[in-house]
Formats: sequence, C-alpha cells, structure tokens
Amino acid sequence: MTENLEGQTCWIAVDWGSTHLRVWAVNASGQVIAQDYSDQGLNNIQENGFERALLDLVEPWLNTGRVTQAVACGVVGARQGWCESAYQETPCYPLQAAQFTKVSCEDKRLAVTIVAGVMQAHPVDIMRGEETQIAGFLSAQSDFNGVVCLPGTHAKWTLIESHQLMHFTTFMTGELFDLLTNHSVLKHTVAAQGWHSEAFTWGVQQAYNEPSLITSQLFSLRAGAIVDGLPAAEARARLSGLLIGLELKAAEGYWRHKEVVILGNSSLAKLYHQALIIMGVQAEIVDNERLTMAGLSCAYSQLIHEKG
Amino acid sequence: MTENLEGQTCWIAVDWGSTHLRVWAVNASGQVIAQDYSDQGLNNIQENGFERALLDLVEPWLNTGRVTQAVACGVVGARQGWCESAYQETPCYPLQAAQFTKVSCEDKRLAVTIVAGVMQAHPVDIMRGEETQIAGFLSAQSDFNGVVCLPGTHAKWTLIESHQLMHFTTFMTGELFDLLTNHSVLKHTVAAQGWHSEAFTWGVQQAYNEPSLITSQLFSLRAGAIVDGLPAAEARARLSGLLIGLELKAAEGYWRHKEVVILGNSSLAKLYHQALIIMGVQAEIVDNERLTMAGLSCAYSQLIHEKG
Repeated sequence: MTENLEGQTCWIAVDWGSTHLRVWAVNASGQVIAQDYSDQGLNNIQENGFERALLDLVEPWLNTGRVTQAVACGVVGARQGWCESAYQETPCYPLQAAQFTKVSCEDKRLAVTIVAGVMQAHPVDIMRGEETQIAGFLSAQSDFNGVVCLPGTHAKWTLIESHQLMHFTTFMTGELFDLLTNHSVLKHTVAAQGWHSEAFTWGVQQAYNEPSLITSQLFSLRAGAIVDGLPAAEARARLSGLLIGLELKAAEGYWRHKEVVILGNSSLAKLYHQALIIMGVQAEIVDNERLTMAGLSCAYSQLIHEKG
Repeated sequence: MTENLEGQTCWIAVDWGSTHLRVWAVNASGQVIAQDYSDQGLNNIQENGFERALLDLVEPWLNTGRVTQAVACGVVGARQGWCESAYQETPCYPLQAAQFTKVSCEDKRLAVTIVAGVMQAHPVDIMRGEETQIAGFLSAQSDFNGVVCLPGTHAKWTLIESHQLMHFTTFMTGELFDLLTNHSVLKHTVAAQGWHSEAFTWGVQQAYNEPSLITSQLFSLRAGAIVDGLPAAEARARLSGLLIGLELKAAEGYWRHKEVVILGNSSLAKLYHQALIIMGVQAEIVDNERLTMAGLSCAYSQLIHEKG
C-alpha cells in the first residue's frame, strides 16, 4: 500500500501503540499524501526491531541524500518501547518540544522524535499517546474548557483548562473487559458478539449504584447463565455496562456539571455516550480518526519552530 | 501412591475441582486408609474421560464382585462436568441426599454419586464444593450461628443459622488476582513472589474507602512502578490488598457484628484474617484440610441411611 513518494514527503507522522503501527506521509503543505499500517505494535515486535518495522512501512517515502523527520507518539516511548521518552508533569500543555526525545537511527535518511507522555504525581498516573490526541483536539477547539474522556484499553478522563491538561485518571475498564471475556470463567457466559440495550443500561445502573459489589456482580453473570439461562449476548451487554458504570461512578467528579467530550470513533465511544445519557449527561463525541495526526502536526510544527 | 486395598475399602470420597482430583479410601469404621490425587481436574480432563480419570486413582481400592460407592463434590457436578447435578436453593441444609445425582459407570465395581450444589435466586448465585466444606465444618460445630468465609478463586461469604445456609455471595477476587498478575499490563509490575505487609494494609484501606476507584487503583500500580519505582513485591501486596479490601467493603453486611470463621489452610486465609483485623474484626481460621472429607462422610451417611 505504500507508494514511492520520494521527493514529495516532507515529514512522517507515526502512531505506535501496543497492537498497531500507523504512519502518514505529509507533504510540505501539511497534507497527508499517503498512509499505511502494520501489526508491528509493541506487543508483536522483535527485540531491537523498531527501526526495521518502521522502515518496512516508510522506506518508499524517504529521500536519498536528505534526512526525513518522523514524529512518533504512543507506547513506542515507554520503557519497553524503542526508547523511553520523558514524561511531562501535570498541569502542562499536552505537547512541548523541549520534552521530546530524539532516537538515533541506523538509516541516515531517517530521524525519529518521540513526543513526551504525561505523568501525574498525586494520585500517580501516566499517559502515552492520549496527550497527542488531546493536542489534536485542542488545535481545532483552542477555547475548550472542560472534560475530555478517551475510552479504550486504559480509559482516561482528563480536565482541560486554558489549553492545559490539569489532571487525569486512568481506568483499566477496557482491559478488564477483554480479560474477563477471553480468559475468565465468564468466557463460557459472555458472547463475542451481540448486544442488548436494556441489559447494558441495567449493568451501568447496577455498578453505579453499588460499586463495591463489582466482583460479585461479575460472578452473577455466570450464575445467571446457569440458573436463569441468561443469554450470552445479554451477558456481554451487562458486563460492558457494569464496567462502564463502575468507571462513571469513580469519574463522577469529572463529568458532573462539566462540558464533556468523548474522543473516539468506535462503538465503545457510543457506549460511553449512552452511559452518560443514563446519568443525565449529554456528551459530545468527537471522531478521533484524525486527532492523532493533528496532534503530531502540532508536534512537528514545534520541532521546526524550535530549530528555526 | 495407591495401594491395593481390595476388601478393606468401604467407600470412596472424591473432591473434584477445576484443577485437581483428590480421592480418599474409607474403611467400614470411617477411617481414611489411603488417599491419592491427580491433576485431572475439569480444566485438564479429556471429553468423556471422567470415569477413566477416577479409575486411574481408585482402581486398586475396588472389590471384585461388589459395588463400591464413591461420593463426589465439586465442579464435577457442573454443566461442563461429568454429569450436571442439582442445585438446592437457599435457605437449605448444605447436603441432603434427596438432591444427590447418581452417575452410571461402565465399570460395574463402581457407583458414583455427586452431591448437589447450592443456588440462590435473588441475587442469583451458585456454589459447588463449598457446601461440602460447610457441611464438614458444621458436623464438628453443629451449634454454629454466624458467617463462614471461604477464600479462593471465587470467594464465598455465607450466613449460617440453625444448621442452614441462609444466603451467600460470591466474589471473583482470586480469579481477578490471577488474571491481573498473569495476563494484564500489571504482569510487568507485580512480582510472582514476595510480600510487603504495609503495602497490603494500604491496599485494603484504599479499596475499602474508595471502592468505585478500583480499576483506577489497579492502574496506579503500573503508574507507580514507572513514576515512583514501586517495587514488584510491594505492588503484589498492594494488588492483593486492593482486591480483598474491595471484597470486604461489599461483604460488610456479613462480617460486621457477626461471628466470622474463615475456612482455609493457605496463606490466602491468613490474608483475609489480617484484612479483617484491619477492619477491627477478629475472625477464626479453621483448617479446611479435612473439611471436604468430613462433609463427604456426612453425605455418605445420608446415602446409607436413605437406603436403609
């Protein structure tokens, strides 16, 4: 899918997560002229295989005789990643070039910069990748003051004021859903597909109202299947509702009485939207498809500005 | 390890769980004259391999020309087990012969009876195996009125009054600990061994005080390791404390102002004991090593009585 764009590519944007590697070729006008992806995320990559995995995608875009800058975000900057990049501490602007980390490459046509993640001292928390989406979101809505929710494996709730990330909280909601669905006793109970809206609503309310009972509510899905014949698609929706409802209870300080934006384009973002409606809150979903790219553009601009 | 006890074995006790199969040969005086075990629990067994797995252990104990009764408890009676046995509904006496299920064997020297599990309609819940431990416990302390806690993969809290199991609640605490330790992002953070008492106490209090924050508290172990260098043994103790503290919060209606007995002989039982001390409650630990055997003896007595 990569084309030979030698001579046209000005810089390369890189979103490098646990399960995927996505790249965009950007021309001098800031337009995306090509994109590609692979499964060479942090979980799948060979040791010392980072540069190779990146070249596998971007080599056709490189220019002989000059260095093309790649700007990367995500867990590629984690301790287990290519090179551990710094963490900024909250409160902070989500991307600041002074905190970026340069990685040396064997291939002299390529220079890689990894943006900084964000950490919080109390309560201790970290993010990598989400700060870039937030920067991308703020680049289009610079006057936003409110709460940004990023559903996912490790869902984040963040408070934004005056362009700064003030504080944030991470919840292992998505990872727990995957663990319980695929590796726990519930794997016999919870369908891989299918849905049931009322069961989702029930789950959200159940966990919100009695959060401490969560591990009992989880087991009740299994008991319900055996005793009452709870259908597997309904169990799936209940499980999702329970975990999101638990998160909403804990994150209430974020979403109650605040303007809330959910960054996402997946069915998961719609579930968070729906769960907030159950709580009486109308959030806005902003498609995050282009936000990482937009955030990386901000990072690249800063790099150029810093050099200039 | 099995001896040839032909002619001496009166009946056979069988504890058949997810990961193990344990058997005892009992003589006419009710004494255990031999025991054995294998890893042929429900998770490891071949389809239709139940009788074979049992014979592999007990064949030397069988008597040619007469039928030896085996009495079994545990997930062997679950839907995915050898034969689904009934569930009694709470409130109920933990073992009642009228609810037992007979399984037909190919080998005519062997007759197998599976005791009934216990179910609860509201809130829906189930147990298999724990009812036998409880019956064994009550056989020695028949005037017990109070709360019995059974730590484990699926921890149970049960209220006992006038020899009856009144109601109970299951928590997926042990399974979540295993999932998080072995399969989640925390596997890099949490040691397989090691301990730290203060970290355990901290975790118990943290989850007890803010139960809805559990999935955030879990992630903070990872963040704490990265930002503050939280040692892996300390993270292990915190994780254990968080999950047990969450369970104690939800089970407070059981243990507050009640006599509490913990059935177990593992380090886990001691952790529950310690966590309850943090809550100001002095529980008693009763070694469960012989309780399953004692419960199965009660079941066998009932079977004989029923026939007689």
